[in-house]
Amino acid sequence: MNPLYARMGTTIFEAMSARARATGAINLGQGFADGPGPRAVLEASAAALLEKSNQYPPMIGLPELRAAVADHYARHQGINLTPDEVVVTSGATEALAASLFALIAPGDEVLCFQPLYDAYVPLIRQAGGVPRFVRLEPPHWRIDSAALAAAVTPRTRLVLLNNPLNPAATMASAAELAAIAALCVEHDLIAICDEVWEHVTFDGARHLPLIGFPGMRERTVKIGSAGKIFALTGFKVGWMCAAPPLARVLAKAHQFLTFTTPPNLQWGVAAGLASEDEWVAAASARFQAGRDRLATGLRDAGLAVLPSAATYFLSVDLAESGLVMDDVTFSERLVDEAGVATVPVSAFYAEAPVTNVVRFCFVKEDATLDAAIARVAGWV
Amino acid sequence: MNPLYARMGTTIFEAMSARARATGAINLGQGFADGPGPRAVLEASAAALLEKSNQYPPMIGLPELRAAVADHYARHQGINLTPDEVVVTSGATEALAASLFALIAPGDEVLCFQPLYDAYVPLIRQAGGVPRFVRLEPPHWRIDSAALAAAVTPRTRLVLLNNPLNPAATMASAAELAAIAALCVEHDLIAICDEVWEHVTFDGARHLPLIGFPGMRERTVKIGSAGKIFALTGFKVGWMCAAPPLARVLAKAHQFLTFTTPPNLQWGVAAGLASEDEWVAAASARFQAGRDRLATGLRDAGLAVLPSAATYFLSVDLAESGLVMDDVTFSERLVDEAGVATVPVSAFYAEAPVTNVVRFCFVKEDATLDAAIARVAGWV
Ligand SMILES: CSCCC(=O)C(=O)O
Ligand SMILES: CSCCC(=O)C(=O)O
Repeated sequence: MNPLYARMGTTIFEAMSARARATGAINLGQGFADGPGPRAVLEASAAALLEKSNQYPPMIGLPELRAAVADHYARHQGINLTPDEVVVTSGATEALAASLFALIAPGDEVLCFQPLYDAYVPLIRQAGGVPRFVRLEPPHWRIDSAALAAAVTPRTRLVLLNNPLNPAATMASAAELAAIAALCVEHDLIAICDEVWEHVTFDGARHLPLIGFPGMRERTVKIGSAGKIFALTGFKVGWMCAAPPLARVLAKAHQFLTFTTPPNLQWGVAAGLASEDEWVAAASARFQAGRDRLATGLRDAGLAVLPSAATYFLSVDLAESGLVMDDVTFSERLVDEAGVATVPVSAFYAEAPVTNVVRFCFVKEDATLDAAIARVAGWV
Repeated sequence: MNPLYARMGTTIFEAMSARARATGAINLGQGFADGPGPRAVLEASAAALLEKSNQYPPMIGLPELRAAVADHYARHQGINLTPDEVVVTSGATEALAASLFALIAPGDEVLCFQPLYDAYVPLIRQAGGVPRFVRLEPPHWRIDSAALAAAVTPRTRLVLLNNPLNPAATMASAAELAAIAALCVEHDLIAICDEVWEHVTFDGARHLPLIGFPGMRERTVKIGSAGKIFALTGFKVGWMCAAPPLARVLAKAHQFLTFTTPPNLQWGVAAGLASEDEWVAAASARFQAGRDRLATGLRDAGLAVLPSAATYFLSVDLAESGLVMDDVTFSERLVDEAGVATVPVSAFYAEAPVTNVVRFCFVKEDATLDAAIARVAGWV
């Protein structure tokens, strides 16, 4: 057996959801919305099942979806991609796996930021790579350029960035992204940029894609997710966008991980990218209202809520809230004693965890949020 | 970059399909049927899209699908699995990747049989494993037990078997499987058994699952594919079945490759496993008729057709056909000059390839097969 997996736990998101399912707790742990998603995407996917081919589509994805992704980014982010620069994957998780396997040679160092999504480090290790961490801290989670420069060694080959950042709910600033871009150019690094939250942004702030920064067009892998864009997390349709020499190698890793992605879901996503901009904007507005509702409720309950500029999440600082317990204890007690599942933010650190922050998902019906607030308030 | 992928070509199946798409050739290369698949599976999947949750299902799969898979194998193969011994994956390719990543520690040797599916060796190498090959040859492709025993070393940890075997179109005999089982028990090996073709068998022959052999229940990973069972190759719903201590580790690799599989397709497959046994049997009968039609046509054209006991494929022995060219030349000329795409069997060897055998897919409409036969006959 591979000791990497034999020693590993189940991902915290699944563990918390399983616990919520088992106990009937309100699940503000794993990030998913409880609405139905855009009807047009579901109907186009259902129609494709019944009317189009359900055999292998092209390995890199349907041309229609790849063109729709390219067009989407041209309209929303001013990036010019050709369809051949888009490789469709079975969700952004597969895109991360394929990118890391394709681009890491054994012994290569990968510069990462903590907190990080819990798939990153096992995938880097599976690829034979070595993670090097830049540690971000609440309340601002800002990237310190001295720490960034200090994390680069002669073996560094890749930077792996999640922006907007889950669980911190921050968006990297133009200055932070420019510093990362300059570092990549200076040290000839490739950036893998997990931008699955690019459309889940609030208060009018706009996502800045790293690939748009000087020198980054040829050295960035931009990862996106239809599941996040359309709040259909079970769709498992994602993509990785990169200049042709990179895209070709990414596709070669992809072909042996899943080979391809169900064509009917690809048709549905292509239809949605062409027609559902308004749905996406309206969803962000709804999520923002959910954020405000949960933040107000938790603040009224005496908790110190950190700002949330993006993602499905906000966090509570336990120390600032005057609670003398760590995040894991808080999450465990909250699910067992109050019936509300959350995620302790220490799960997003591979070393030197921040242990005083707990993440809450707010993309839920008002009634669900109100019930959760009442339970938390009663318990606190 | 990872030199493994930088040096690698695109999978032969995709390359041939892309060439067929570009030139309008009849595609008897990549294995997929041209029928619509069972209506009940498509309708249940479409209904689930519109009526059920499209958010993350449980990471190891919907309980309903896992129960349906267990029930299916109990009825068809007399194997008793609990639903917790089934982990749903995004196709059998992902199941292979997850199994190999979970079970290979760097330096472990994996005993494989050539010809082999072209994903096997890159996945073993990505996992840090070392493939050791037992070479099978036409016309019988039988497993020689002396060669089998000779391939085991003190570092061998796994056996990776495809049965029925693509592209040889053979089914391992009870004696061959008993020899593999005895070897696994003697040397304490785990078997990963890619049985995606288990229901695509002909002439009344029954598939024998390796997990049913003495001593194998606790040391076998059985991989299956809904895409192959229902001739819906774009569905990308597969599974890996194993005793709980193995299944738990497999799930941990799976969670970081795709995390989960679209719930609507899982619902469709669960419905199909419960109701479509007759469709599956009728499909095998249709495929058998297609096999016979193509075999007769190619024989009449003067080609030496090897027997096909299972899979979507039959093969032609070029040397026995009196053709003095290798398989790659034949395939390239046939697609360019006659407009029929096939797959050269040397693509299924990592070393010492058999170079005189070409694979044809026969799960096509009669008219398509007849047109292909006419083109081949005219060209030969
Ligand atoms: C793959 S489950 C994790 C979902 C998610 O993005 C989160 O909860 O952070
Ligand atoms: C993943 S494409 C390969 C399909 C197949 O099983 C084959 O053609 O052998």
